[in-house]
Amino acid sequence: MSKEISRTERTRLRRLPDRGGYDRDIIYAILDDAFICHVGFAVDGQPYVIPTGYARIGDDLYIHGSSASRMLRNLAKGIDVCVTVTLIDGLVLARSAFHHSMNYRSVVILGKADLVEDAKEKHAVLEAFTEHVVPGRWAEVRWPTELELKATSVLKLSITEASAKIRTGDPKDDEEDYAMNVWAGVLPLRLATDEPIADSRLADGITVPNHVLNYKR
Amino acid sequence: MSKEISRTERTRLRRLPDRGGYDRDIIYAILDDAFICHVGFAVDGQPYVIPTGYARIGDDLYIHGSSASRMLRNLAKGIDVCVTVTLIDGLVLARSAFHHSMNYRSVVILGKADLVEDAKEKHAVLEAFTEHVVPGRWAEVRWPTELELKATSVLKLSITEASAKIRTGDPKDDEEDYAMNVWAGVLPLRLATDEPIADSRLADGITVPNHVLNYKR
Repeated sequence: MSKEISRTERTRLRRLPDRGGYDRDIIYAILDDAFICHVGFAVDGQPYVIPTGYARIGDDLYIHGSSASRMLRNLAKGIDVCVTVTLIDGLVLARSAFHHSMNYRSVVILGKADLVEDAKEKHAVLEAFTEHVVPGRWAEVRWPTELELKATSVLKLSITEASAKIRTGDPKDDEEDYAMNVWAGVLPLRLATDEPIADSRLADGITVPNHVLNYKR
Repeated sequence: MSKEISRTERTRLRRLPDRGGYDRDIIYAILDDAFICHVGFAVDGQPYVIPTGYARIGDDLYIHGSSASRMLRNLAKGIDVCVTVTLIDGLVLARSAFHHSMNYRSVVILGKADLVEDAKEKHAVLEAFTEHVVPGRWAEVRWPTELELKATSVLKLSITEASAKIRTGDPKDDEEDYAMNVWAGVLPLRLATDEPIADSRLADGITVPNHVLNYKR
C-alpha cells in the first residue's frame, strides 16, 4: 500500500487543514500510542458511540468483544462505521478565553468491518490486543481455549479511508493580547500509572512482573 | 427532574446490566470528572465520531466550536446525536487472556441538540467550558467579545436519555485459573500533568498561577 492514504470527500479536513494528515506513519503512530477507540455506528438512524479496545496489525484495525455484543453483531452486518482514536497531550492556555484549546492527536477511520472467522487469525488478533495494551503480558497468561475463541467476536476494518488531526505547541493569541499580564502556555497531560493493586485472591509469593512494574505509555 | 433517568429501549444495558446505571448523580459525576467527549452523528448514512470538549450546566450538556464547523452545522439541524464520555481507570490483568479487561466509567447520552442563540447564555456556557477544564482560569483571562461570541456555535443537549457504565475492582478469572502462578490485579491509570511550558512569547515576570501549578483531575 502507498504510504499516503488517499483523501476522500468524507475524510478531507475542511477547517485548519494544516493540522491534518494522511500519512500512514503518522496515523499508525497515533493508533499504536493509544489503546481505546470510540466506535460510531447507526441503528435505525440513531448513532451510537461505544468505547472499546483495539489492535492494529499492518494495515488493518481490529476490535473485539463478546459474540453477544449488540455493537459487534450490528457491525458484522457490514454497516458503515467510524472509528476514532484520541490522545490529549496538553491544555493550551491562552490569554483570551476564545483562544483556549488543547494539544491532541486523533485519527478517524471510515469503512465497513468484516467478521474474522478463522480461528488462527482470531488467536493472532487476541495476542495483538493483549500485547498492544500490556506488552509482555501474552507470554505469561493462559491463552484462549477453542470455546473462548468462539465466544469472542473479532472484527477487522481496513485502514484505507482515514485521516489524522494534530495540534501541538503554543497558544495563538490575538496580537494585542500578548501585552496582557496573564500567564499563557501549555500544561502537558499524559496517562500515568499508580501502584499496581494485587488481586485479592492472588496466591502468596507471586511478585509483580516487570511488564506491570515498568509500564509506560 | 427525577434523580433516576428513565431507561429507554435505546439506553437499556443489554449485557452486564450490573455494570450500568441511570442515576443522575453517578452520570453527572462522570461528566464532571472528564472533559473530552466523542460526538457521534450520521451524514448521508455515514457515521462520524469527533472528539471535543464539553461542559455541563444543570441537566444540560453543551458542546461548542467554530460556527464554520461541519459537525456543529450538522448537529444544529436537529439530527440525532450520541455523546459518549469515557474515563479509563485501570488495566485489569487476569490470569487468562480471555478475562483481561479495563476498569472504566462511561456515559452515553442520546438526543437532539439545540443551537444556543442568546448571547448571555452563550457567555455563561463559555465560562462553564473554561472552568470545567481549568477551574480558576476564567477570572484571569480576557473574556469573549461580541464578535468572538458570534464566531462560536454553542449547542445544548438535554440529559434526558442517558446511561452510565462502570467497571471497578479485581479481575474475574475462571475458578481453575486461580491456582496459576501468574500475577493478577489492576494497574491503576490516571491523567497526570507534567511541568507547565510557558508560551515562547510570555512576557518576563509573569509567574505560573496556582490554577495551573496545582492542576489535578
